[in-house]
Amino acid sequence: MGEFELIKKYFQEHSQGDGVIVGIGDDCALLQVSEGHSLAVSVDTLVADVHFPSNGDPEKIAERALRVNLSDLAAVGARPRWFTLAISLPSVDENWLKSFSQGLLRVAKQYQCVLVGGDTTKGPLSISIQVHGEVLAEQALLRSGARVGDLIYVTGSLGAAAAAVLALESKISPTAKDRDYLMARYYQPTPRLAEAKLLAPYVSAAIDVSDGLVADLGHICEQSNVAALLDLERLPVAQAVTRSVEDSAAVELAAAGGDDYELCLTVRDVQRSQFESVAKRHGITVTLIGNITSGAGVACLMHGAPHQLSKQGYQHF
Amino acid sequence: MGEFELIKKYFQEHSQGDGVIVGIGDDCALLQVSEGHSLAVSVDTLVADVHFPSNGDPEKIAERALRVNLSDLAAVGARPRWFTLAISLPSVDENWLKSFSQGLLRVAKQYQCVLVGGDTTKGPLSISIQVHGEVLAEQALLRSGARVGDLIYVTGSLGAAAAAVLALESKISPTAKDRDYLMARYYQPTPRLAEAKLLAPYVSAAIDVSDGLVADLGHICEQSNVAALLDLERLPVAQAVTRSVEDSAAVELAAAGGDDYELCLTVRDVQRSQFESVAKRHGITVTLIGNITSGAGVACLMHGAPHQLSKQGYQHF
Repeated sequence: MGEFELIKKYFQEHSQGDGVIVGIGDDCALLQVSEGHSLAVSVDTLVADVHFPSNGDPEKIAERALRVNLSDLAAVGARPRWFTLAISLPSVDENWLKSFSQGLLRVAKQYQCVLVGGDTTKGPLSISIQVHGEVLAEQALLRSGARVGDLIYVTGSLGAAAAAVLALESKISPTAKDRDYLMARYYQPTPRLAEAKLLAPYVSAAIDVSDGLVADLGHICEQSNVAALLDLERLPVAQAVTRSVEDSAAVELAAAGGDDYELCLTVRDVQRSQFESVAKRHGITVTLIGNITSGAGVACLMHGAPHQLSKQGYQHF
Repeated sequence: MGEFELIKKYFQEHSQGDGVIVGIGDDCALLQVSEGHSLAVSVDTLVADVHFPSNGDPEKIAERALRVNLSDLAAVGARPRWFTLAISLPSVDENWLKSFSQGLLRVAKQYQCVLVGGDTTKGPLSISIQVHGEVLAEQALLRSGARVGDLIYVTGSLGAAAAAVLALESKISPTAKDRDYLMARYYQPTPRLAEAKLLAPYVSAAIDVSDGLVADLGHICEQSNVAALLDLERLPVAQAVTRSVEDSAAVELAAAGGDDYELCLTVRDVQRSQFESVAKRHGITVTLIGNITSGAGVACLMHGAPHQLSKQGYQHF
């Protein structure tokens, strides 16, 4: 049983009620807090030696933890407002805490998201961050808005974070410059908040690429009751990745690697030119990578022929 | 360095900003979501073998975890609306998850608090719940509202949850009936939501008793820049506690034991009769246990003479 089955089986059916616009199943829950405005809420937990090495740089761990959460707000088009931190620590290590809080609060300041509360407990090292954002209810980007005939886009480039993990495991040997780039993409992912805000009017569905493009696009398909055809040869693989691994591996990293925190977006065909011109005007890189069809699931094509990936995305269990 | 010092040193100073009515340091953060209304937010983490035995009944663990969080909403006078669940599990145990979700969702239904999102990760067993409530901004109960001359009250009775822990550790041997009562108080604490709502107009400061009465009253004193004189002989010790332990131990459990989730409230002297008559009319047990003075800290008196407790409250580190 995977994470998503588990949630569906035990928790999801009760996720409805007064003031719940969107409950479990999207990047954020959307809660009606006042007429027309909704609160976007998302929580992510990072466990030591599962999501990060326990002896890793606490500043980088903190920075990544908050950036990853802010990416969930970007995926619904919300503006960051506040966050809470629940942290379990095996003991009080002042040097560790100092670095951790510096990293955390620098990112908080950068994105104007204020730390408003939390809980500190003794236990195995684990960091749980919950972000709160605001979005006009009718402008929220949901996973459920894709329709047959929509075009599929992705922002920026893919594969760098997954390549960084390979480099950390010494499985690949990028140049020093490429390594720096890969590490920055892994430890300091950019939540695509500004991009989401600008592109939102032309977007029918959105998700951030955390588990891997194919897996995350699969969530859009499931929530929208559609299928996707993904043209693998179009994927915007990061150049540092293509320089560091073979072509076939680069495609795998881009399609299934995860942790890129780019946005995967669907756009109505009639909105295509407006979407692309707004992106161009604001210097946002977007790449057309496929289209939505009827059916279920994500089919990967390479130059029009079916292509089987060896890895489908991150599985917790 | 204790939990509270740690928070103050590394995190608290940044807890201010746009829309933050109350940041770190109260039972909940209060966030301005619309004119006059605020969102009350609180997060609590329970770690296996720190806060509950890892082989404990998952239904009881879940129930307690949510009730404890709802108590934080009661302590600010907020109405429960939504919650999220971040849970780390070493593996997927379907029986465990079934019981856990049953306990969790039963309490959610009882208090009309809807599960709207969360995160499930692989890791050491740990449960982090964040509750969201609503309160009219001017009716929120804060820790900072106590003034010299205020009277100190507590709802219900004290000491039962701490006695339950002693019984679980086989350090005391209550009768079967008393044991049932103690266990119910420990595993199924009642968040004093209805009481808080009814009493709020007459209350100057409030906190829920989680770390222990003396420690929690100390938080009111710190946030209000006042001191407290606590009359130990007045404490409403639960009868099952007085029957199960010696008198001196019963007072210790009531004053420092924690986990009771009663409300400790301060009331202006001029509001006293109104407060007490509203409580009486609604069948709410409230006991006058001391008064607020100038200075700092909590002084414990026994029949007017200074009294030293052997334990001051729960310390995480």
